[in-house]
Amino acid sequence: MRGSLTVIGLGPGNAHQVTPEALSAIEAGEDFFGYGPYVDRLNLRDGQRRQASDNREEISRAQAALMLAAKGGKVCVVSGGDSGVFAMAAAVCEAIEAGPAEWREIEFAVVPGITAMLAVAARVGAPLGHDFCAISLSDNLKPWELIEKRLIAAAEAGFVMAFYNPVSKARPHQLSRAFDVLRAHLPGSVPVVFGRAAGRPDERMRIVPLSEAHSDMADMATCIIVGSIETRLIERPGKAPLVYSPRSAGKI
Amino acid sequence: MRGSLTVIGLGPGNAHQVTPEALSAIEAGEDFFGYGPYVDRLNLRDGQRRQASDNREEISRAQAALMLAAKGGKVCVVSGGDSGVFAMAAAVCEAIEAGPAEWREIEFAVVPGITAMLAVAARVGAPLGHDFCAISLSDNLKPWELIEKRLIAAAEAGFVMAFYNPVSKARPHQLSRAFDVLRAHLPGSVPVVFGRAAGRPDERMRIVPLSEAHSDMADMATCIIVGSIETRLIERPGKAPLVYSPRSAGKI
Repeated sequence: MRGSLTVIGLGPGNAHQVTPEALSAIEAGEDFFGYGPYVDRLNLRDGQRRQASDNREEISRAQAALMLAAKGGKVCVVSGGDSGVFAMAAAVCEAIEAGPAEWREIEFAVVPGITAMLAVAARVGAPLGHDFCAISLSDNLKPWELIEKRLIAAAEAGFVMAFYNPVSKARPHQLSRAFDVLRAHLPGSVPVVFGRAAGRPDERMRIVPLSEAHSDMADMATCIIVGSIETRLIERPGKAPLVYSPRSAGKI
Repeated sequence: MRGSLTVIGLGPGNAHQVTPEALSAIEAGEDFFGYGPYVDRLNLRDGQRRQASDNREEISRAQAALMLAAKGGKVCVVSGGDSGVFAMAAAVCEAIEAGPAEWREIEFAVVPGITAMLAVAARVGAPLGHDFCAISLSDNLKPWELIEKRLIAAAEAGFVMAFYNPVSKARPHQLSRAFDVLRAHLPGSVPVVFGRAAGRPDERMRIVPLSEAHSDMADMATCIIVGSIETRLIERPGKAPLVYSPRSAGKI
């Protein structure tokens, strides 16, 4: 008997941004794997089981979830934001590819969620209104030189950028280095949004020009959006400015 | 008296992918502006007014919505997907910037939604599991040369790509040209996902290698995901293959 494994995106952390599809998938699940703080968001009923684990154990978590599903379990793996964006869906796919053949027979599904950059963008205006990219700044799984290459390519081609995993205790210097790289390729006036905990009670949005952007302005819960040369501010009396990227662009 | 203008993302078209936040914002609105098929998705009650308009009238629609909000109306502008990704939030910001000073005093908010690429990615595995970009292939508002520049930059830097607005009756040849450009910079084996109407009854997912990708496989309702050189397929007995981009990458 084959079970099921559903990877579920819980959104940025506000219950009003969790989709009904995600709630239905949770309702149907029996065992819930995920990083502790995400599993803690679930309102599980009696008989539904928590299998929380540490942040850096994605593959072993995916394997444990697949083993249980292969035995017939109705297993859910939960992520914050969207489970397909720098989250558990890819880790589960990696584990399926490297694992026993029977894991390919498990009913596998992914439920999308509101990913952090969309939630942050919505709070400040429309900075992702033009072509954009999403880059994880963590070099745990790719060389830093590749990250720098992507930063430069994105800046020179006029993409707005969203940074995920901008800093951690083990990686305090990379965001600082990323801003230095970008300052060599973009005007200092380009707006940078530090969006922390979008939609949660401890939300904090901060907008600074690239020339003043500093790694101290971010923590692990921050998604950073760096504008393109076209990204603009609209000043408003008594309100935070709007940040947006016009739909149109000229030659660059 | 100043009113409010809320731009709301309705998700890809499945009612189970509309957030409670979006439903609350609709509940509180009086006048609803948007492209006809999106306004048609709303279950409005007596007294809530539809202001549907054609697909290509974003700025005049934004201006009409802002004028009504400036008179005190509780105005909503609705988009499919996420309203901040190639949708109405940027158009409203453009109109605010160019419009009368009083438009800057309107209570302006954006409610995020599940954007097409997230819904499509979820249906096929985790193709957006590594660094990626989103590009509108429409050259209505930017020169085609800039689009080609971005395609090449993204391919060479190893970004997965999601294409929005891939074709229209007025632009039948651009997607074909985009695939030709990419074939000169990526292996023909790179997986391409044509995701049509994700989550709707007429959903259709198709996965082909780049060497076989053809513009006839897309229409206006299709979001296309082009893998990077790292993007892989997992074959499964009796099931569609999974497409995913590993979290890790080597030098490129």
